[in-house]
Amino acid sequence: MTTDGAPARGVRVVVYGVGAMGAIVTRLLVDRGADIVGAIGRSPEKVGRDLGEVAGLGRTLGVLVEADPRLVLSRGADIAVVCVGSYLDKMQSHFALCLEHGVNVVTIEEETVFPWTTAPDHAAALDELARANGVTLAASGAQDVFWLNHVTTLLGASHRVDRVAGRCVWNVDDYGPEVAGHLFVGQSGDAFAQHVASKGWPEFVARQTLEAMVASLGLTVKSIKSDVEPVLANSPVLCRSLGHEIQPGHLIGTIDWTEIATEEGPQFALEMKGCVYGEGDADCNHWQVCGEPDMELRNEGVSYRFTTCSTLVNRIPDVIRARPGLMSLDKLGPPGYKHGALRI
Amino acid sequence: MTTDGAPARGVRVVVYGVGAMGAIVTRLLVDRGADIVGAIGRSPEKVGRDLGEVAGLGRTLGVLVEADPRLVLSRGADIAVVCVGSYLDKMQSHFALCLEHGVNVVTIEEETVFPWTTAPDHAAALDELARANGVTLAASGAQDVFWLNHVTTLLGASHRVDRVAGRCVWNVDDYGPEVAGHLFVGQSGDAFAQHVASKGWPEFVARQTLEAMVASLGLTVKSIKSDVEPVLANSPVLCRSLGHEIQPGHLIGTIDWTEIATEEGPQFALEMKGCVYGEGDADCNHWQVCGEPDMELRNEGVSYRFTTCSTLVNRIPDVIRARPGLMSLDKLGPPGYKHGALRI
Repeated sequence: MTTDGAPARGVRVVVYGVGAMGAIVTRLLVDRGADIVGAIGRSPEKVGRDLGEVAGLGRTLGVLVEADPRLVLSRGADIAVVCVGSYLDKMQSHFALCLEHGVNVVTIEEETVFPWTTAPDHAAALDELARANGVTLAASGAQDVFWLNHVTTLLGASHRVDRVAGRCVWNVDDYGPEVAGHLFVGQSGDAFAQHVASKGWPEFVARQTLEAMVASLGLTVKSIKSDVEPVLANSPVLCRSLGHEIQPGHLIGTIDWTEIATEEGPQFALEMKGCVYGEGDADCNHWQVCGEPDMELRNEGVSYRFTTCSTLVNRIPDVIRARPGLMSLDKLGPPGYKHGALRI
Repeated sequence: MTTDGAPARGVRVVVYGVGAMGAIVTRLLVDRGADIVGAIGRSPEKVGRDLGEVAGLGRTLGVLVEADPRLVLSRGADIAVVCVGSYLDKMQSHFALCLEHGVNVVTIEEETVFPWTTAPDHAAALDELARANGVTLAASGAQDVFWLNHVTTLLGASHRVDRVAGRCVWNVDDYGPEVAGHLFVGQSGDAFAQHVASKGWPEFVARQTLEAMVASLGLTVKSIKSDVEPVLANSPVLCRSLGHEIQPGHLIGTIDWTEIATEEGPQFALEMKGCVYGEGDADCNHWQVCGEPDMELRNEGVSYRFTTCSTLVNRIPDVIRARPGLMSLDKLGPPGYKHGALRI
């Protein structure tokens, strides 16, 4: 039974975006007994085909990939799982469409983790739209567990926190050409430096995750410093998501780095190295807490690509049950495992 | 401001138990600006002395250690921090006294982590008493972070959990003679074996923590297996808390082991090795998750003695704000760091 006394039922989901991540999400949703009521794609090779085939499940699901989101959303759903792009500027129209149709949204789009300072206008508008339609917009992904709540839970054992510093490494090739493009993979070091010098560099998920951490601890941001540096190939590196070799001196990724000082004292830093992996590279998650006591947290087997999708799917009931509005990750409560079929 | 609109204020705390753990808690409470309104002890060497001296702070606090809990509790307090013993059978009268006086309780007593199956009568009676007096009884300590919520947060990234297995090592000498006595430290392997064969062995915190984990995941216990084996000294080992050397063939600790099978499938295991440390030994916390994906969690710098006290102190506002009753750890929400002075 649900809290309002109605019997629990399965979840009606729209898969919004059928790229590399949407394909994994589709398989997980099928495993978890979700009722996939629609799928939205844009690539001409995918539109019109069955979602099961597009997602590589080796069987059909009786759900066609459609190009018109309005048509799909107008048929109704509990939630849209949106795996399309990485910044609110691009994604806000997709989110708005879902919210206007009374459909909750959970997304891997990183800025929505904590969009209030980097995209305040979009955040305020989407928050208002979600409230007006009685639905919730929230982001999740590996950062929800590994870079935010896993760390804040550990801090529950801290008497005094002076500094919290994380270091994560992830494989650009795990996320498809969209993300490789964001990171200038394949471009020259000079082209990257000129781009950053002239146009700046959008702060990636490190900043949003740390801001969510500071907010969830009830602390106040005093200053934020972010920087980026290129990771250059030393020898030719095959980039699978772009389908070609990256030559020496060209980018195989970036190191995004953010540090936040708070009015109250504690400092927070996160260094995210995203690059095309060579032999022996593996995702890592390592945090150090300086204070009383000093503590360390280390995860192996992180598999950020997979856990971004599995965390997102576990969040579906939380997002549907959350109060209406844009819920940044500091407001969504702890992530948790939901065993078996998803029910709401 | 608090949720009811009243301005936040400091916390009025009674330190109930001034042994090894109570002394650390006292120092942390002073650091966090708590208003210590009373201290309860039983040892004739401590009663009548100032709490600051008894706790080794090197200064007085203007709070005398008193022997009569009724007298101290009748003066009123928000919460009693109870660090006296390890089983509800012994502790329930202490808890009942606090609750009857309308004083919330947070305790390091391990059974209260999840007492519903190992001490159901005490648990039901204390739950009723707490509700009747509008206050909350809850246990915390290192297990709250490291063996429960740190693990359940990680599971938020699991698509499918088959088995969760933890391995922890802690130093008996960190907890004073009370705990060393529980673990038969200094007694012979034969005496221990005869005791276990004739009287059984009370399940320690491993079982309660795993049961809280199963409950917090919404799963159903199918069966519980627990076992204990002695850790014997190979050479003479100095036990600081007992003040003498343990001879070879005698116990320096135990390995407590619990495994829970659930109706739904996932299995949970925890092995806790508590022993008197020799050179180079250190607290460890290591968890493995088998399923999709396989994951690992490893903490260094755990310092269970200290983090039992620091976690307990961080829980004070949570326990005061919780709904009345006995709140086992599955019901208390995630632990979290509270920066600076404790406020409610």
